Amino acid sequence: MTANTAAAQDYVLREDEEAIACLTLSRPGALNALSDGMLAALRGKLNDIANDPSVRVVVLRGAGKAFCAGHDLKEMTAARDAPDGGAAYFADLFDRCGQLMQAIPRLPQPVIAEVHGIATAAGCQLVATCDMAVAAEGTRFGVNGVNIGLFCSTPMVALSRNVPRKQAFEMLTTGAFIPAERAAEIGLVNRVVAAEALHEETMALARVVASKLGRAVRIGKGAFYDQLERDLQGAYALTRDAMVENMLDRDTAEGIQAFIEKRPPSWNQ
Amino acid sequence: MTANTAAAQDYVLREDEEAIACLTLSRPGALNALSDGMLAALRGKLNDIANDPSVRVVVLRGAGKAFCAGHDLKEMTAARDAPDGGAAYFADLFDRCGQLMQAIPRLPQPVIAEVHGIATAAGCQLVATCDMAVAAEGTRFGVNGVNIGLFCSTPMVALSRNVPRKQAFEMLTTGAFIPAERAAEIGLVNRVVAAEALHEETMALARVVASKLGRAVRIGKGAFYDQLERDLQGAYALTRDAMVENMLDRDTAEGIQAFIEKRPPSWNQ
Amino acid sequence: MTANTAAAQDYVLREDEEAIACLTLSRPGALNALSDGMLAALRGKLNDIANDPSVRVVVLRGAGKAFCAGHDLKEMTAARDAPDGGAAYFADLFDRCGQLMQAIPRLPQPVIAEVHGIATAAGCQLVATCDMAVAAEGTRFGVNGVNIGLFCSTPMVALSRNVPRKQAFEMLTTGAFIPAERAAEIGLVNRVVAAEALHEETMALARVVASKLGRAVRIGKGAFYDQLERDLQGAYALTRDAMVENMLDRDTAEGIQAFIEKRPPSWNQ
Repeated sequence: MTANTAAAQDYVLREDEEAIACLTLSRPGALNALSDGMLAALRGKLNDIANDPSVRVVVLRGAGKAFCAGHDLKEMTAARDAPDGGAAYFADLFDRCGQLMQAIPRLPQPVIAEVHGIATAAGCQLVATCDMAVAAEGTRFGVNGVNIGLFCSTPMVALSRNVPRKQAFEMLTTGAFIPAERAAEIGLVNRVVAAEALHEETMALARVVASKLGRAVRIGKGAFYDQLERDLQGAYALTRDAMVENMLDRDTAEGIQAFIEKRPPSWNQ
Repeated sequence: MTANTAAAQDYVLREDEEAIACLTLSRPGALNALSDGMLAALRGKLNDIANDPSVRVVVLRGAGKAFCAGHDLKEMTAARDAPDGGAAYFADLFDRCGQLMQAIPRLPQPVIAEVHGIATAAGCQLVATCDMAVAAEGTRFGVNGVNIGLFCSTPMVALSRNVPRKQAFEMLTTGAFIPAERAAEIGLVNRVVAAEALHEETMALARVVASKLGRAVRIGKGAFYDQLERDLQGAYALTRDAMVENMLDRDTAEGIQAFIEKRPPSWNQ
Repeated sequence: MTANTAAAQDYVLREDEEAIACLTLSRPGALNALSDGMLAALRGKLNDIANDPSVRVVVLRGAGKAFCAGHDLKEMTAARDAPDGGAAYFADLFDRCGQLMQAIPRLPQPVIAEVHGIATAAGCQLVATCDMAVAAEGTRFGVNGVNIGLFCSTPMVALSRNVPRKQAFEMLTTGAFIPAERAAEIGLVNRVVAAEALHEETMALARVVASKLGRAVRIGKGAFYDQLERDLQGAYALTRDAMVENMLDRDTAEGIQAFIEKRPPSWNQ
């Protein structure tokens, strides 16, 4: 293994605690920017997890002072030296980033963002993209690319699917930060906790989800985003099939029987 | 009439107060579970009302300790004895339930849920499905099927069309209850009132709606859900036609004329 | 210019302050009703602005006691004298109004509603349609056509794309007013300010947006509404292209370079 490869492996650290995989963005000196290396590393870790039945929940956090400050502007600027001014690189970059952001809702396991410091631009997009988010008091959120002349057009896809549109529009066009409490009010995060309790509170939430029947959660998460993009009739057709599949699971049969008999279930999963 | 038929009739009681039809789910011993009998009875009552021009508003409530605790788990478990393990029954059950949940937005008259005690799983779906909801202080809401291994995939269709997606996802994957006040904050209910005032407050809201021109409300409700599923251009095309139809109504002409002349309207309806 | 034409020009006044165009609905005696003349004048002003690169932000307000009280009921009533009872006129009116309401999200520049007094029916629709809105304390919002027998079907298109559906349904079927603070809670306006500070606060927000790179804001706003109507994959495809276009802008390159070098950008725009 070369030094370069080792470095690439280190962009995202994975530590498992029972059924919970904690992924830590680990370029604190760059505020965990979503560089080519970071995007590839995070995508790789998620691919591993997608195929790892031992993982039931993912926690995503950032090392150092910030959760994530968005794209790597120096790397992007360097791409301008190409004959096309960077056009091909930029299209590929935003494709790869968009693929990552679509991989999170498609991951079988729920993903919880554990957010502190700042979450800006594509970093804020990452929070909005995760299934749930817990934020430390004092965290600031922004889609502030507009401040340097680059409107956060891709981050707004995720943001505008989390918060009311006038609030999203204001964040996008003013480039202003909002505090964690406001992020909770408008739907961008699930809850705000004391900074010193952030990891423990996030893990507590993760443990609750991990304690559920994994197969039921997978079926449910799979249907969640699909049904959101269908009309009411299509959404009910899709979720009817999800319910039938879920009902025919052996562990679900046991879970329901145990509930009727007022005893704890004995699950094989 | 056999005893069985009499019982079936009693699943849902209907009492009309002027133009308001109050439907009461009446299996308090089963926490008003949406059994086959309950689904059929409720669908039947709604069908009656759809064709009853004397009804302008529907109030839906539950007898006993709870509004509704979701599907009938014993009945569902009994279906597992079939050679297919219940697959055909489950598909049919969730079809019938989905049809009911789609019949409420399609009903010409507004439906207000009057919610107390608990509204869980398909019971929470019923609240989310109603056009409006009033909740008693102390009511708890949950889509908690995940706790027994059955993800609330069909309830999430209605829930995720009422509340922000991260909040919906948390309820679905943690199985946690939320109190009435939180339900109001996130859009699941319109208001929370003192428990002892629940029926009176719900009826007060129903009377306001019932006092409007019935034909205008029918036109508007009909367009409300349809336009939500269209793009902006399609939504405006659809509602333009609704406005023209509404304007050409004799009573509407009188309502507008009366407003201009600063006198009460004299409506035929 | 005839007296009639002069009057038509006066329906909407335009005053520019640097890159901000302030449009004032100026029929205070009619509470700035969206009459044929007002619709045409506002559409005309927006068309001018769409093609005016000197304008970066639009502020829309109303002269006199109210922002806007909706359609002109007397004018609509007069149209009933036609052989078809007004059918053709009404269809055309709601078409023109819908075209105006679609022109605002399609305008390249952000539009901020500066709202005071009342915003009712199509006036409330206008607030919901603007990209952002600032309201004075004491402002009341309603889609109260139902009170006179005319359900606010076209206003609900904009309203239901701003606020949760149960809250929208309640406003539409009860005809009740909501205060500015409630409008902010449910997403209909961005913020509520002291009545005497309304214009200054709105202009302060407008100046922040106007200080951004105009081309970046245009690209972003253009993509904002389009991506909302696409599925996740389509939204990311669309915004990827917006990001590439934005990145290739000379001023954006300078903005990013200046940020890296920790100096203010030198923009040509």
